[in-house]
Amino acid sequence: MDVSAKPKLDDVARVAGVSTATVSRCLNEPAKVTSKTRERVLSAVEALGYTPNFGGRALASRKTHTVGAVIPTMENAIFARGLQAFQEALAEAGVNLLVASSGYDAEREAAQIRALVGRGADGILLIGTARPEKTRAFLKRFATPCVIAWSIGGPGDVYVGFDNVAAARAIAERVIAFGHRRIAMISGITAMNDRAAGRIAGVRAALSEAGLSPEGLVVEEVRYAFDEAGVALHRLMAAPEPPTAIICGNDVLGVGAIVAARRRGLTVPCDLSITGFDDIDIAALVEPGLTTVHVPHRRMGLAAAKALLDLIEGQPQDRHVSIETSIIERGSLGPAPRSSSIGR
Amino acid sequence: MDVSAKPKLDDVARVAGVSTATVSRCLNEPAKVTSKTRERVLSAVEALGYTPNFGGRALASRKTHTVGAVIPTMENAIFARGLQAFQEALAEAGVNLLVASSGYDAEREAAQIRALVGRGADGILLIGTARPEKTRAFLKRFATPCVIAWSIGGPGDVYVGFDNVAAARAIAERVIAFGHRRIAMISGITAMNDRAAGRIAGVRAALSEAGLSPEGLVVEEVRYAFDEAGVALHRLMAAPEPPTAIICGNDVLGVGAIVAARRRGLTVPCDLSITGFDDIDIAALVEPGLTTVHVPHRRMGLAAAKALLDLIEGQPQDRHVSIETSIIERGSLGPAPRSSSIGR
Repeated sequence: MDVSAKPKLDDVARVAGVSTATVSRCLNEPAKVTSKTRERVLSAVEALGYTPNFGGRALASRKTHTVGAVIPTMENAIFARGLQAFQEALAEAGVNLLVASSGYDAEREAAQIRALVGRGADGILLIGTARPEKTRAFLKRFATPCVIAWSIGGPGDVYVGFDNVAAARAIAERVIAFGHRRIAMISGITAMNDRAAGRIAGVRAALSEAGLSPEGLVVEEVRYAFDEAGVALHRLMAAPEPPTAIICGNDVLGVGAIVAARRRGLTVPCDLSITGFDDIDIAALVEPGLTTVHVPHRRMGLAAAKALLDLIEGQPQDRHVSIETSIIERGSLGPAPRSSSIGR
Repeated sequence: MDVSAKPKLDDVARVAGVSTATVSRCLNEPAKVTSKTRERVLSAVEALGYTPNFGGRALASRKTHTVGAVIPTMENAIFARGLQAFQEALAEAGVNLLVASSGYDAEREAAQIRALVGRGADGILLIGTARPEKTRAFLKRFATPCVIAWSIGGPGDVYVGFDNVAAARAIAERVIAFGHRRIAMISGITAMNDRAAGRIAGVRAALSEAGLSPEGLVVEEVRYAFDEAGVALHRLMAAPEPPTAIICGNDVLGVGAIVAARRRGLTVPCDLSITGFDDIDIAALVEPGLTTVHVPHRRMGLAAAKALLDLIEGQPQDRHVSIETSIIERGSLGPAPRSSSIGR
């Protein structure tokens, strides 16, 4: 590509119909520009793919003391505890949190990020790493301080997360150690969800290491909803060789599966073992309790807030914070049944 | 009060250190003013208690296509489904939603409202009616389109909600009809929470009508958290005359109480009846299922979005939308036990 074809500040000004000084002010001191102008300039910047040069300059002038978070969903408690801790830590620093939810939709996430940047957010928390290059480029272009949580990000990311592959692998190893060989998975939808995809990869790795076929793993991908887990469980148990253990991609699916198994007349874990992921409140409330991966959500939320505040202030910091997960045994995982005729 | 003592536009301009034209622009066309200036002017307006005269003018010029919601908490699913529907309806209209949470704190709610207005939100969704006069005055001063949900508001409010008193009264009547006389309540904290207070009032009204003492109702006020319900249940059951039925202020408390009762060796509903409020997912997942008040959260969220969009557009609308609740019987409410020695 010809370097001279790169869009320049002039081009942005022309497309936005403003002066180059206004474009410059908009990019460097957005709080001093009206939101109408800012949105016009941002649209032009994005349309042209213009990359401003912020250099190493501290971003102190951009402070609105408001931080944004775009989370995939507010519908269940997956992100609730971590986000609560994130907000508490921000509040202590006098920073407000505005939350938007994307519904696991890449376009909507991009729109929410634009809205937050357009409203002058000092920084942004995002969940996971799966997003189109266009969205990453937008964040880079505006040098928006951005922290990724719930995942281990790439080398260029600032992240406070955990290793979804390793955590899922660990719980799958536990399932295998209980003698299960016919293992299935009820997973979240993997499109634009690196956490869901990573958890499947972790289970496959454990199967492979145990000499079981990773390709043979039957995976039902469903939305994270209690009743969706029930539908998936019924499909899995209707197979000629139904699983003796179902590894669920999160606790919403795990609890949904336990309830569906009970309604199907199956005793958990005698007839069927079920595991979850997250360790949210309900995992301890179902009967039997859900054996699951414990994610220290509060610790992650607090650390993410610290990372983002440091990034906004231009403070030196750990760019990569990896939070350890652990396995909580409760009762939904037991030895594989000797007879395999159940559920048929 | 002397009318001449009322703060004028001049006073605001002087305190904010800007021209009167800027104050006027800030109040009438905030999108044309920088956020820095807007915040300075808003602070002065608030400090002085200045009331701008917006007259009947449509607010079309204020459009940022962003709407804010301040909800008490994101920690459990109480507001999740309604908010999800609210967001879906806004998205269809091309309007973004930014959510802030107040932690049931009046000061924080006021700060979040200021932040949202300061960031140029076209309108705001608030939960319930309990807030200081100062906050109401702020919203009035800026003529911020505002819809109240989850409650029946006052005559001056635009609301899309339900009658918490009547709904709680209905479920208490059901409990009484099952022969219960020793009834206790585990309630949310009533300070700045008109929903929690209204539900207690509803239970008292039902007791009174049945010839039982409304003052005799023992109420444990706790945070909406599963384990808090457990602590409250143990306190209630340790009384010399423990209740035979516990009416819970919401489903989080109801499910927490069912689990705590089970751990205490009590069978629900044979030994102890428990009811909830909201009908969120987990109410159907516990064993036994929680008998509760069904709130049509999705319908409320969709109707609230329509009301707020109409208000922003200056469209004629129903200012008061009351959503009907109903009772869902599941199994946690049964006849009062004949012996009253349990739990001692």
